[in-house]
Amino acid sequence: MFESAELEHKVSKEDYSREEPQLRADLLDAQYDVLQAKRFAVLILVNGLDAAGKGETVNLLNAWMDPRNIDTYAFSDPSDEEQERPHMWRYWRALPPKGRVGIMFGNWYTEPIQQRVAGEMKGPELDQRMEEITRFEKMLTDEGVLLLKFWFHLGKADQKRRLKLLGADTKTAWRVTDLDWWRWEHYEEYKRFSEHVLRQTSTGFAPWTVVDGYDARYRSMTVGKILLDAMQRRLARPDINHRVSAAPFQRVLEGKNLLSALDLSQALAKKKYESLLAEWQGRLHTLTMDERFRNRSLIIVFEGNDAAGKGGSIRRITGALDARQYQIVPIAAPTEEERDQPYLWRFWRRVPRHGRVAIFDRSWYGRVLVERIEGFCGEADWMRAYAEINDFEDQLTRHGAIVVKFWLSISKEEQFRRFKEREDTRFKRFKITDEDWRNREKWDAYEEAVCDMVDRTSTEIAPWSLVPAEDKNFARIMVLSTLCQRLESALGPKPKSGKTTEKPAKKAKN
Amino acid sequence: MFESAELEHKVSKEDYSREEPQLRADLLDAQYDVLQAKRFAVLILVNGLDAAGKGETVNLLNAWMDPRNIDTYAFSDPSDEEQERPHMWRYWRALPPKGRVGIMFGNWYTEPIQQRVAGEMKGPELDQRMEEITRFEKMLTDEGVLLLKFWFHLGKADQKRRLKLLGADTKTAWRVTDLDWWRWEHYEEYKRFSEHVLRQTSTGFAPWTVVDGYDARYRSMTVGKILLDAMQRRLARPDINHRVSAAPFQRVLEGKNLLSALDLSQALAKKKYESLLAEWQGRLHTLTMDERFRNRSLIIVFEGNDAAGKGGSIRRITGALDARQYQIVPIAAPTEEERDQPYLWRFWRRVPRHGRVAIFDRSWYGRVLVERIEGFCGEADWMRAYAEINDFEDQLTRHGAIVVKFWLSISKEEQFRRFKEREDTRFKRFKITDEDWRNREKWDAYEEAVCDMVDRTSTEIAPWSLVPAEDKNFARIMVLSTLCQRLESALGPKPKSGKTTEKPAKKAKN
Repeated sequence: MFESAELEHKVSKEDYSREEPQLRADLLDAQYDVLQAKRFAVLILVNGLDAAGKGETVNLLNAWMDPRNIDTYAFSDPSDEEQERPHMWRYWRALPPKGRVGIMFGNWYTEPIQQRVAGEMKGPELDQRMEEITRFEKMLTDEGVLLLKFWFHLGKADQKRRLKLLGADTKTAWRVTDLDWWRWEHYEEYKRFSEHVLRQTSTGFAPWTVVDGYDARYRSMTVGKILLDAMQRRLARPDINHRVSAAPFQRVLEGKNLLSALDLSQALAKKKYESLLAEWQGRLHTLTMDERFRNRSLIIVFEGNDAAGKGGSIRRITGALDARQYQIVPIAAPTEEERDQPYLWRFWRRVPRHGRVAIFDRSWYGRVLVERIEGFCGEADWMRAYAEINDFEDQLTRHGAIVVKFWLSISKEEQFRRFKEREDTRFKRFKITDEDWRNREKWDAYEEAVCDMVDRTSTEIAPWSLVPAEDKNFARIMVLSTLCQRLESALGPKPKSGKTTEKPAKKAKN
Repeated sequence: MFESAELEHKVSKEDYSREEPQLRADLLDAQYDVLQAKRFAVLILVNGLDAAGKGETVNLLNAWMDPRNIDTYAFSDPSDEEQERPHMWRYWRALPPKGRVGIMFGNWYTEPIQQRVAGEMKGPELDQRMEEITRFEKMLTDEGVLLLKFWFHLGKADQKRRLKLLGADTKTAWRVTDLDWWRWEHYEEYKRFSEHVLRQTSTGFAPWTVVDGYDARYRSMTVGKILLDAMQRRLARPDINHRVSAAPFQRVLEGKNLLSALDLSQALAKKKYESLLAEWQGRLHTLTMDERFRNRSLIIVFEGNDAAGKGGSIRRITGALDARQYQIVPIAAPTEEERDQPYLWRFWRRVPRHGRVAIFDRSWYGRVLVERIEGFCGEADWMRAYAEINDFEDQLTRHGAIVVKFWLSISKEEQFRRFKEREDTRFKRFKITDEDWRNREKWDAYEEAVCDMVDRTSTEIAPWSLVPAEDKNFARIMVLSTLCQRLESALGPKPKSGKTTEKPAKKAKN
């Protein structure tokens, strides 16, 4: 979920100077409209890593808008008064009334994550707390609160640099505490648990926005624009009870995004490719024959640009497998039978047994790609789909499935070349249709949807692998090696003794 | 939650014969309309105690409607096929498509409750499973499924009688297994865990209906009418994505309900009353002074008919308390400030500290009583309020609060007498307004709302006490004694040594 936020996005001084006055004026206008309408409250949660610019952003929002109509709360240790009430009491006290903007800087997420990293809270307790929070936020949005959740992120090295910088300056040294350094030392745990929390609490009605904290101008612009858009959209909707949060996804302010950041020039010469292919196919074969795989299963998802080479990559995988062991599931438009069921139904029916491999050529992600872009489902539907998909993959992995997801990426120019080639090659003509050309016109919309998809569904249990596929050889080897590495780490170390258990133990994993 | 279902409701043979043909014809019509419209699927979950008539009801539904368009599934132990997939897979396979009716007899609730009673599943795991189920059912209803959940209940003695009867008849003896008897022996655990499960999963979008299984005609009529109403309401609504489940509450088919079942003739003579009053007030005083109360708090809720004597009961409580220790919170129409916040906000702000008592003269239950009846909030809002209130009380009790809720009940005639008396007595005239007379006209609507409220919010953590208040003396003593008993059981046994802890330990209870 943090992939996008580690791209070190930047906004130039010139762009910022050009855009800032307008944004500021618009924000102030929107704030006054909210105040006048008095139809809903705006609540902004500010969370994330130390030194990622949380405080600066809060100050800026107060500077951009009218601070008399903003309630800013920074929660630290609970008071005696607060300790003697349920832990949500302090936040209830601080809720902004209709018409006002509340900023909670430190909030109901802060303590559970901190306690989890410090080992004071166990996993199930954290999960329970997150469920409580989800129900609470559902209630808030049902009651009409416009809830925006920002998570400020930084890469580990960058966070260190920032903490050092702050500590070295006598004016800011006080801000860097031992606790900050302790947290930096536990960066990996923080990241892991935060990702878990974000996955559990990023719902259709209150999604998270992860903000890259690397550049001050970028993060200010991001938060400001998202806030403005959310307020304007909500003001325009007279029905205060609509369930779709007005929080749009993180818009790209410059050309940089997860896809554009890929190095598509990576390539493999034929000879090298052939030796690597043999090597990785051998390893994949051995792994799927391993007794440790007998009570696991493998689910591989292929998504990608049209003509990015999904079919070719799939064939390189199946070439290493026993034909009785795998199934390729091509996903096109749903059948009538499938349309009569919840959209995940057709994927549930193809969930493999233990010891088996299912390869999805396109998948449940169609909901947030083609269905979103073509308007086959409403915004509320694809917004809730991210959480539903995460739930689905959570159930799969908890039952022992290994879920590996690939996005195969090519440039617009390369796609054009391949389309043309398909048209010109007789046995490839069936592979190119008018629809492919039409989809191509929506290239930018797809790119945005793919970035949103990765931001919201690349989780610690089922991360996305973005594969530069301009060179087919490179892509195929990356797919195979990623697959082997995920399998190896999921299966764990090989048992020392040679004894085999004939029948795998049936574990009640859930 | 099972209070209503232990009233041994009955429908006479004559009433049944009169109503059944019409109901049957209407159900069949509705089923065909659902099939023709093909806009949504109907899914009926059948759960509850053994011998409470689940199977008979399922058979009857198949007889009343066209069984060719009903898919009935009885899930028992999972097959090999099923064990090798996530535990929800088998239910996904059995989902009815749009236009059809699915009946799941044994379903995603069965196994977790059974495992919890058998001690094979721990509390947190059960909670986690219920959260999973809630998200799953949310997804189903978001996808347009009309989901109806029936829980068949029986009193313990009655269940024994039924099991014996079934066992004695050679035609039905095969139906009574050792497991049934084992479950009967664990009746109390079943009831407790089931109540917990029902509280967690009775949501605004998929509420439970608890059905009294005592009388076959009653339970058939109940299920049939609720199903019919739900299908008809849904057919009439073109927007398939509305969130309010069309499941209405259990309608009263005969005069019997929780309130009518109260014995209002109970009374106490003055002399007896006075000695009991002194005794219970003394006990209440001692309990609230007890050191074990120092890190607990007491929250008392009074609801009741107008003029039922809430004020008098409250004064008998406060008479036993230290004035610095309690606060009476009278709840009238919300202030402007309160209207600008989520409806629970004004109750959160009055949550007492440790060692304190808050007495609510009317309460958050206004949402599902006056606001429901007067239309101050929409159906979706009061429907979700039950779950929100249960969440609220759950947070309170987990933090150490003891929540005691009273409904003071008088007859319509007694209310008339008291209203008249108020009008005629000078110092009582302020207590009677035109609004009281208007409310009285909605007596039946209130009675229905009160029964729904008790069915949905009388939980193992915060049960309702229904107080016959026709005789004020009787009511006051019942209130005081209930309060003392709840306090005693919550505080636990008195510590043996005389040592006092000056400052109560601050426990992170949540």
